[in-house]
Amino acid sequence: MGSVKTKRMPRAVREQQMLDAAVKTFGQRGYMAASMDEIAELAGVSKPLVYLYLNSKESLFSACIRREAATLVEAVRSGVRPGTSADRRLWEGLQAFFTHTARNPDGWAILHLQARTHGEPFAAEVAAMREEIVAFVTRLIAVAARDGGTPCSNGAESLGDHGDPALPEHEVAGLAEALVGAAESLAAWANVTPGVSARQAAATLMNFAWAGLGDLMEGRPWSPPPPQAEAPR
Amino acid sequence: MGSVKTKRMPRAVREQQMLDAAVKTFGQRGYMAASMDEIAELAGVSKPLVYLYLNSKESLFSACIRREAATLVEAVRSGVRPGTSADRRLWEGLQAFFTHTARNPDGWAILHLQARTHGEPFAAEVAAMREEIVAFVTRLIAVAARDGGTPCSNGAESLGDHGDPALPEHEVAGLAEALVGAAESLAAWANVTPGVSARQAAATLMNFAWAGLGDLMEGRPWSPPPPQAEAPR
Repeated sequence: MGSVKTKRMPRAVREQQMLDAAVKTFGQRGYMAASMDEIAELAGVSKPLVYLYLNSKESLFSACIRREAATLVEAVRSGVRPGTSADRRLWEGLQAFFTHTARNPDGWAILHLQARTHGEPFAAEVAAMREEIVAFVTRLIAVAARDGGTPCSNGAESLGDHGDPALPEHEVAGLAEALVGAAESLAAWANVTPGVSARQAAATLMNFAWAGLGDLMEGRPWSPPPPQAEAPR
Repeated sequence: MGSVKTKRMPRAVREQQMLDAAVKTFGQRGYMAASMDEIAELAGVSKPLVYLYLNSKESLFSACIRREAATLVEAVRSGVRPGTSADRRLWEGLQAFFTHTARNPDGWAILHLQARTHGEPFAAEVAAMREEIVAFVTRLIAVAARDGGTPCSNGAESLGDHGDPALPEHEVAGLAEALVGAAESLAAWANVTPGVSARQAAATLMNFAWAGLGDLMEGRPWSPPPPQAEAPR
């Protein structure tokens, strides 16, 4: 970033540099302690230029939240290939999530910690992103429950109609909330615990969510489907 | 509360009344919008008395967080009877947790939402309580993994020593983080979703955590152990 010329750069590019510097500073120092001087210096621009482009510390922080939320949602979405088995899709989604949060620890600190710790307007931005992820996971579980249910279940109407294998809609929503909460918690833990890779964190949650503690205790973790089940990249 | 005389009451009792009123007001209105006038009125005391006893809005809010955190931790601890099977203990702990958060929605809103949304000193109080709960769950899973492992595993040293059934310590810590995150998320959801009882929320998480999505999809939820396994109350 330091080697890039800062003169005559398109506004969009310069704004991204400011946001890069802001995410790093807010994520590492916290919203309160972060100073606009520091952000401007790290971005290699003058402080008035930061204010000119992004108005205020508040709106700069909001812009960081929005950008980080959008890239996280996009990373998870694009990590999951349609048409594969339900557990494979969950495994891909979890790997994409933990890889993204591990590579962007400052962005994750902003979303998970900073944005929720500094008042309502910021918290509302994160809540909106979270709802989007919960909805995505809910659909994933609902489709898996439908497909994995009784052989006779072959449509959305099977959800909740049969007592046994298909899960009631209500239960699916609860499971999605549980899974998203578990992922958030584990990502925060993985990012501050030395030696925990993104893949390990994803595997821990996959085992927890798919095999369950009961099977884990008896030495039956979840195993990835054989490679031939994968679509070519 | 309204029928209790407010004169010549021991300080401790009156303080609890103020805290009851404050928890309700902070939980429902949010920290920023809550007014000391409203809290004093709800507690049936004068505003100067609230300031005399609890100093400031900040320290009143801190006192609410500490009290709600302590009663939540105590509810979970006392809900779990030692000497029963691991899945029974987890089931009891989850029921205690969801029963407590359902009965004290304002207290839970303070811990889960308000305390994390209004700056560092409050967030730190909740983080301390959370660490305590994670440590409790970690021990529960570690003991379950030890007991549920290979027949030859009979001590703490079995954790991570055998590749297969016993879980590495590292993995246990991650599973505890995942479980606590899932419970937090589900409690917040259950409290705002009509028709979800504490028992249902606990059952959803027990199914998720113990049976896993894999078994759930195939119609094999977790079932409570038979009643004869229970110790007499």
